[in-house]
Amino acid sequence: MRTIEWDEASKSVLLIDQSILPAEFRQIPINTSDEMAIAITKMVVRGAPAIGMALAANSDRSSQLEDLQKHMAQSGEYLAASRPTAVNLQWAIDRVMRLVTSFEGSADDLRESVLLEAHKMAEEDIATNMAISQNGAELVQDGDRIVHHCNTGALATVDYGTALGVIRMAHEQGKRVHVYVDETRPRLQGSRLTAWELSQYGIPYEVITDSTSGYLMRLKKVDRVFFGADRVAANGDVVNKIGTYMLALAAYDNVIPAFSVFPMSTVDFDTPNGDRIQIEERDPDEVLNMQANGQPVFPEDAKALNYAFDVTPNRLLSGLVTEKGVFYPPFFRNLLVHRDHQG
Amino acid sequence: MRTIEWDEASKSVLLIDQSILPAEFRQIPINTSDEMAIAITKMVVRGAPAIGMALAANSDRSSQLEDLQKHMAQSGEYLAASRPTAVNLQWAIDRVMRLVTSFEGSADDLRESVLLEAHKMAEEDIATNMAISQNGAELVQDGDRIVHHCNTGALATVDYGTALGVIRMAHEQGKRVHVYVDETRPRLQGSRLTAWELSQYGIPYEVITDSTSGYLMRLKKVDRVFFGADRVAANGDVVNKIGTYMLALAAYDNVIPAFSVFPMSTVDFDTPNGDRIQIEERDPDEVLNMQANGQPVFPEDAKALNYAFDVTPNRLLSGLVTEKGVFYPPFFRNLLVHRDHQG
Repeated sequence: MRTIEWDEASKSVLLIDQSILPAEFRQIPINTSDEMAIAITKMVVRGAPAIGMALAANSDRSSQLEDLQKHMAQSGEYLAASRPTAVNLQWAIDRVMRLVTSFEGSADDLRESVLLEAHKMAEEDIATNMAISQNGAELVQDGDRIVHHCNTGALATVDYGTALGVIRMAHEQGKRVHVYVDETRPRLQGSRLTAWELSQYGIPYEVITDSTSGYLMRLKKVDRVFFGADRVAANGDVVNKIGTYMLALAAYDNVIPAFSVFPMSTVDFDTPNGDRIQIEERDPDEVLNMQANGQPVFPEDAKALNYAFDVTPNRLLSGLVTEKGVFYPPFFRNLLVHRDHQG
Repeated sequence: MRTIEWDEASKSVLLIDQSILPAEFRQIPINTSDEMAIAITKMVVRGAPAIGMALAANSDRSSQLEDLQKHMAQSGEYLAASRPTAVNLQWAIDRVMRLVTSFEGSADDLRESVLLEAHKMAEEDIATNMAISQNGAELVQDGDRIVHHCNTGALATVDYGTALGVIRMAHEQGKRVHVYVDETRPRLQGSRLTAWELSQYGIPYEVITDSTSGYLMRLKKVDRVFFGADRVAANGDVVNKIGTYMLALAAYDNVIPAFSVFPMSTVDFDTPNGDRIQIEERDPDEVLNMQANGQPVFPEDAKALNYAFDVTPNRLLSGLVTEKGVFYPPFFRNLLVHRDHQG
């Protein structure tokens, strides 16, 4: 399952439409970087920004290099604004823009180079995910019962995934695992996407409401917790889907190992800790748009508050799983040592 | 708003139908104690068991006292089985059964006595809730931002409520409060019932997903936490709606006072601590029956695990609010002293 694909014939991108899963599996064509920005706002696909830049290059017909470069810079800013919390998105756009601004040659050559770079980044993303998953799978024991939050699988990346990739890799290695899938309100990426993926892979699971994991831990029914990250501060504080903090806290209170799983590009060394990170408030309708058995479950004039992410302090985490290996506390020291020796 | 009323003309009970709130406000007639048991399974109304016993007495036409007593005993067992976790339900049935088994007189006299006892218990319940709410309101400061879990208002009791009664009383005393309403998956008693009640009382609120409260606390946007209890062990461990443990844990981690609010009849002195209390697993369909914008949010063959309650260890609680006052740690000692001096 490849979440995002370049269609050379139409010079467009084919994207799995997460918004209609699990009812229907369908790819939608994305023709411009503006359309891609809208898609990124609605879904999370880690490969999307780079390929969005390729779209920007190919949907602009400028014959002058300078005009194309200018257009690319604007598109990059627009794409970056689509998800301010995700540092990885900015990282991918910056990488393409380094190529764009230093480019020498014709506008057509640049179009081709950007597309090649996007392809290369997609392949790297998959290779990175495989390395992350290999490193994480070593932490999984045969028989483990694992809590997973949000969606971090193939659907959230170009392919294979991060935290869900770890679980998938352990399963492919023959380890028996059972996944407790946090439904992940408000947008239910757990029940909608993760449950669907696990079913595709033949991995046994049960969906639980987000408030259940703590009690399962108290009943000694949980062995390990895995989730992703949208941004990681230099001290290992993790910005991730709302609910991650309470999940990690419950794991800590029950002495159950909890791991955040992400590519190194998610680490923001310019942000010393999570307290300084501004979290986006999203449309209350994402909370309010629910029904049960077709009936309303909110008063008609109900008000809701919708934070999409939260910050989990590093003290609650057992380790950070990356393509470079698993980082253990003290995260601040160990992440910095890695940057300064391999950066 | 009186949640449960005896209709003398039809010898039946009028109950607010919680299952269609907030879409529609309607009372449904309950004619037998079996119907009441079904209603108790679907909803939580603290006055329901006693009035259910009155129904049992009045729907049975036995002319012999002994036959009626036998019928009452069976009805009591059936009613008690409808919600095994709620100790209060057993307490109410036991109280009616003490009257029934020691009764001397005609079957008709017993029918009348049981009805009088049920009325008396309903009035006592309201008086108890007012006393609880008075005691709890003293803990609320002007300007407080309060997290509330599940529904503990008029709809969950005969009238006024417990944890929500505290908030309502503080509001009626002129204190400005803002309530963050946990939606309370899976059955959404928060968004369906508590939001609806708060709107009736003119108390400002915002619904949040159950995984949001911890992050709000980290942002210093929460001053106090109030929730109810279905059963309280002798050491102060609290059995309550699923999610209470993670909520109380987040409050503890952020040094925010968290209070469980309940009548003394909820305390089960025969249970030393919460670890021994068996929690009922409920129908997975209560989790799976959701849609968003009318679209499925679970795969068609999805599996779910549905614990209705959890156990919150007493170490996470700042106090227990009852009609007899607020109990502070050590709960074990202070609850026992109360029992032995006032029991």
